[in-house]
Amino acid sequence: MKKFIISKSRRLKSTPFTSRLENYGVTGYTMYNHMLLPTFFNSLEEEYKHLKKDVQLWDVSVQREIEINGKDSYKLMQLMTCRDLSKAKTNKCYYVPLVDKEGYMVNDPLVMKFEGTKWRVCIADSDVLLFAKGIAGASNLDVGISETNISTLAVQGPKSDSLMKKIFGKEILDLKFFNFNYFDFQGVSYVISKSGFSKQGGYEIHIEDLNSGLNLYDYFISQGREFNLKPGCPNQIERIEAGLLSYGNDMDNKDNPYECGFENYVNLESDINFLGRESLENIKSKGIKRKLMGVIIDINEINLTKEEKLYNGKDKEVGFLRSATFSPKFNKVIGIAMINKAYCKESEDFNININGKTASGKVCNLPFA
Amino acid sequence: MKKFIISKSRRLKSTPFTSRLENYGVTGYTMYNHMLLPTFFNSLEEEYKHLKKDVQLWDVSVQREIEINGKDSYKLMQLMTCRDLSKAKTNKCYYVPLVDKEGYMVNDPLVMKFEGTKWRVCIADSDVLLFAKGIAGASNLDVGISETNISTLAVQGPKSDSLMKKIFGKEILDLKFFNFNYFDFQGVSYVISKSGFSKQGGYEIHIEDLNSGLNLYDYFISQGREFNLKPGCPNQIERIEAGLLSYGNDMDNKDNPYECGFENYVNLESDINFLGRESLENIKSKGIKRKLMGVIIDINEINLTKEEKLYNGKDKEVGFLRSATFSPKFNKVIGIAMINKAYCKESEDFNININGKTASGKVCNLPFA
Repeated sequence: MKKFIISKSRRLKSTPFTSRLENYGVTGYTMYNHMLLPTFFNSLEEEYKHLKKDVQLWDVSVQREIEINGKDSYKLMQLMTCRDLSKAKTNKCYYVPLVDKEGYMVNDPLVMKFEGTKWRVCIADSDVLLFAKGIAGASNLDVGISETNISTLAVQGPKSDSLMKKIFGKEILDLKFFNFNYFDFQGVSYVISKSGFSKQGGYEIHIEDLNSGLNLYDYFISQGREFNLKPGCPNQIERIEAGLLSYGNDMDNKDNPYECGFENYVNLESDINFLGRESLENIKSKGIKRKLMGVIIDINEINLTKEEKLYNGKDKEVGFLRSATFSPKFNKVIGIAMINKAYCKESEDFNININGKTASGKVCNLPFA
Repeated sequence: MKKFIISKSRRLKSTPFTSRLENYGVTGYTMYNHMLLPTFFNSLEEEYKHLKKDVQLWDVSVQREIEINGKDSYKLMQLMTCRDLSKAKTNKCYYVPLVDKEGYMVNDPLVMKFEGTKWRVCIADSDVLLFAKGIAGASNLDVGISETNISTLAVQGPKSDSLMKKIFGKEILDLKFFNFNYFDFQGVSYVISKSGFSKQGGYEIHIEDLNSGLNLYDYFISQGREFNLKPGCPNQIERIEAGLLSYGNDMDNKDNPYECGFENYVNLESDINFLGRESLENIKSKGIKRKLMGVIIDINEINLTKEEKLYNGKDKEVGFLRSATFSPKFNKVIGIAMINKAYCKESEDFNININGKTASGKVCNLPFA
């Protein structure tokens, strides 16, 4: 594939770790929240295998953290989401679909509930800061909303527990999935959550002091050798096999949470006040017309750069493929597609035109079996 | 400079013209509004000279257009900006600082006023869609807000009039600066505005039908030879020399419009209702502490990827450099910097550390003389 110069600037930000990544041979980039995100170093497939076997250190600083604090912070958080946050517990993380007044997806962040009135929203690729500011400004809410200067390192893979224990001590192993707490290293306190954009297990270290973050990065690299630690990044193959959705790829501001399979996070049974409530009540009563499903396609490679139509033998529209990758596990291309309701069944057939050729495929449930 | 693979996807969008650009040898990219924007083809400096002499065809599809329509559309537009839009005229364009409740910059779009209640907001690099949806949703406004599927081609340079006349007929020459109208080509109607992100004169063609847009692109290339037309893109040297500001580079959501030199667009004397009114009244009465100024630095090259501190002989902070480029006109590096008020005067001296060396420079007014 052709390579390009990426014109870095103050607007298209590097992360504190970008120079480290480039020393370690990053080859592919994408951009996410106005910032550089590596996509692979040497080979997507080798790194997929390594992630499932050992442990990787990821720079996920692009997952910008928006802090919302003040008297009305819960009110604002709740206005933005259909998930009931009224009983949210301190030191817990929540996967939260944000929706607008029409019930369309705005983002799907991990939300961290701190003590008192403080929340942090670890965002996918859209300017949640401006959505929150629009609502709070128009509603005269008593809140502070700001993008923090936090950069995040993720430690992901089956050996992440052993590595984290070596660095932060055995207390780190008490941290349960989607919980976070404070842990010290060389006199600096870090918020660490048991979370991450893979299904291989791991942690995210939320770094406020960027200098100590660079020290920590280098220390991880030096101490990780016995676990075969390598610098890595969210892996397209692993995330699709795991059925982890990507905002902007699999869903965007023209999809609603029911279509995305988030019905468990649409808490209409709760007496909560959120912008999209009326719209989602309507959508629920009418039922959805399409839904995100898995697909398996009888080809061995794909380079999807936009939505591609899926159709059946009679040229009827089955849906649209939105993400896809070759999967070593299935030895075929797998993907995530928005499928019309009539075809939302395991093993429904479809065709797709890729590179001028027609390929056939089947619909399946998410996550892939 | 090192080259990378850019992992294109549905989230990091190509434009309808990306494959054309790559055939014509695009070398550098940035990303803007979740989309690819070329930064140069062969040489930034050669393309700067060509832009000032002949004419270029730019793919500026990244300048996404948000459409706001409905009974309360003016109310929403006005809530977002400190510029008085109450007397906005149909078929005119307005440069409009958008501000949040705190009076901080959200974006600096070109706004197009259509007949009736329709507005289009041609945005810089931030999700204005979500800001508008936040305000409208919280205020229960009767408006539709959507990102259009429009892609924009800009024709920029001193020969743009001659070229546009050849393609669209002599009526196009009646179009005044910051006006727009409908013009036909081969049976398709295009909205064309006399505008663009250069000071070399030109037009922007707002394309709704992407297939006809591709035909138009190719027709321009074939018909432009006599004017030495080349594919191009917004040029970093030309835009800084011209003092055209770039949201995210020169200013962001931590700056207010007075600091950005937009005092003529802060119409506090008008009886308009916008979110940031009270904040900007406070800022105006207290006065600002810093302002965007030009700087000229005694070096011949720079590769600025983040804000850099400017200081004076006694180590006092003078301000921060935010954009910079070598300027053939001044035969030095020039840039745009946020300068502390005490130093906001022509010819104030400062030092800057670049690549481990200290360089000296002077503050100057914008635009550069």
